Amino acid sequence: MTNHSLPSNDLQDGSVHLLPAVSIDNVIFGFHQNALTVLLLQAKSNQKWMLPGGFVGKEEDLDTAAIRILNARTGLTDVFLQQFHVFGSAKRNRKEHLRGVLQTLGIELTPESWFMQRFITIGYYALVNYEQVIPQADVTSLTCAWQDVSQLPPMLFDHEAIIDKALQALRLQLNYQPIGYTLLPKEFPLKSLQTIYETILGRKLDRSNFSRKILSYGILEKKEKHYSGAAHKAPFLYSFKEETYFKALQNGLKKEF
Amino acid sequence: MTNHSLPSNDLQDGSVHLLPAVSIDNVIFGFHQNALTVLLLQAKSNQKWMLPGGFVGKEEDLDTAAIRILNARTGLTDVFLQQFHVFGSAKRNRKEHLRGVLQTLGIELTPESWFMQRFITIGYYALVNYEQVIPQADVTSLTCAWQDVSQLPPMLFDHEAIIDKALQALRLQLNYQPIGYTLLPKEFPLKSLQTIYETILGRKLDRSNFSRKILSYGILEKKEKHYSGAAHKAPFLYSFKEETYFKALQNGLKKEF
Repeated sequence: MTNHSLPSNDLQDGSVHLLPAVSIDNVIFGFHQNALTVLLLQAKSNQKWMLPGGFVGKEEDLDTAAIRILNARTGLTDVFLQQFHVFGSAKRNRKEHLRGVLQTLGIELTPESWFMQRFITIGYYALVNYEQVIPQADVTSLTCAWQDVSQLPPMLFDHEAIIDKALQALRLQLNYQPIGYTLLPKEFPLKSLQTIYETILGRKLDRSNFSRKILSYGILEKKEKHYSGAAHKAPFLYSFKEETYFKALQNGLKKEF
Repeated sequence: MTNHSLPSNDLQDGSVHLLPAVSIDNVIFGFHQNALTVLLLQAKSNQKWMLPGGFVGKEEDLDTAAIRILNARTGLTDVFLQQFHVFGSAKRNRKEHLRGVLQTLGIELTPESWFMQRFITIGYYALVNYEQVIPQADVTSLTCAWQDVSQLPPMLFDHEAIIDKALQALRLQLNYQPIGYTLLPKEFPLKSLQTIYETILGRKLDRSNFSRKILSYGILEKKEKHYSGAAHKAPFLYSFKEETYFKALQNGLKKEF
C-alpha cells in the first residue's frame, strides 16, 4: 500500500489490490480557540467538502487501513482512532461525485469498474492535537483544512450525517470513557478540559460539579501552580495519569451497576 | 432477496446480486432459566458452531439485510437489533470452512469466485424473547439451537471473539441505555430484571441498590401485586413505560456531565 489514500492508479487498478465495496472515512476532531473542529478536504470537482477517506488493501486489516489513511492527511502516527459505525444505506449516491472526480483527473472508467460500484463506508473517529497536524490535500482535493463542527461548509453526499453520528458517539463516550489526553498539552488547567467537555456537549457545565466529577475518576494528577504574573490567581495545572487513563478507556470510567 | 440467508445459488451467483467482500453476523441473545443464551448454527461440514450470518443485496440497506438474516433463523420481525462492530482482520481465515461447505453442498467453485474471497463481517446484536423464537437451520447447518454464552461449544473461525465483543458492548450498554424490554414478558417482578443484569455482568448485585437505581431512571411502572398463594409475600410486578424507555434508548439513561 502507498501512503496516499487515493492515488489515481487506485481508481484504475483498484480491483487488483483493494477490497471491493468497502471504504473508510475518518472524522478527525481537533480543538482550537474554544471550538471543536474537524479536518476536511475540499473536492476539486465541485468545491464541496468531504471527510478524508480511502480504501482497504486486500491483505490489510481495517484498523491498519484507517491509520494509514489518517497518517496521509495529518502526518500523525500515534493517534486515538476508533471505529464507530458502518454507513450502508443502499441510497448512498456517489455517482455524480465520481463523474466529477474522473473528469478532474482525466481518467475514463466504465460503469462496471470497481470504483463506480456501490460502497459501504466504515466511520472512524479520532481525537488529535490540533497543533501537531500538518494538513495534506490529495490529488482529488483543492485543500485540506480544519472546519468548525458547528458551522460546516456544504458537504459531499452523506458526510455531514457521518460527522453528526461521530459527534453523537463522542458525546456518549464522555459519559463512560475518558477523553482529552490526545487533545491537550501534557499539563493543562482544569478549565481547558472543562471547555472541551462543554464544546462537545454544546452546553455550559457547573465549574465545581465538573471539577468534583472529573477528579473522582482518579485519572488526573495535580501539578504545580501555573505562574501567570499574579501568583495568587494562578490555576493549578493537571496532567493525565496514563495508567488509570488507559485502563478507564478500556473498562469504562465508572460502573453504574 | 429470498428469505434464506445462504441458499446454495447465492454461492454460485453471488457476484450478480450480492455486495462483494461484506457479510453480516448476528449475535442473538436470549434469556432462559437464569442463563444468557445465544442462537447458533452447527455446520454440516465439521460440526463446529457458527453465528447466523448472511450477505447483503446489492440494492439492500445494511440494517435491512441484518433484519432479513435474523428473521430467517428466528421467525421474528420486530426486534432490537444493533450494529456494534466490524471485524476486518486480514487474517480472518474462512478457506478451510468454505471447502467443507462446498463439499457438503456438492458445489464446485474456483478460488477466484466471489464466495472464496476475503470478507469483512459486520456484527449486529439482538436481544430477543427466548419463548418467541422458532430456530430454523439453513442448508449448510445440521441444526439451529440456543447455547449458554458461558459454555460455548467449539466455534468456527473468529465467531467466539465476535460473541465476546458483543457481550462487551452489551455490558457497556447496561450503563447508559435501558435493556430488558425485548427479553421479558409485559409484566415482571423486579427480581427478573435484576437477574438479567447480573447474568450479563457476571456478578451479583445488591437488591436495594439495584432497585433504587433502576427505578430512578423513570422507565418502569409499578403494577399490581403478583398473587402467588401467599398475598403478603407476593412481589410487585412492573412494566416498562414505552415512551421513556425508547427515549432513553435514543438519548442515554442519564447524563454524567
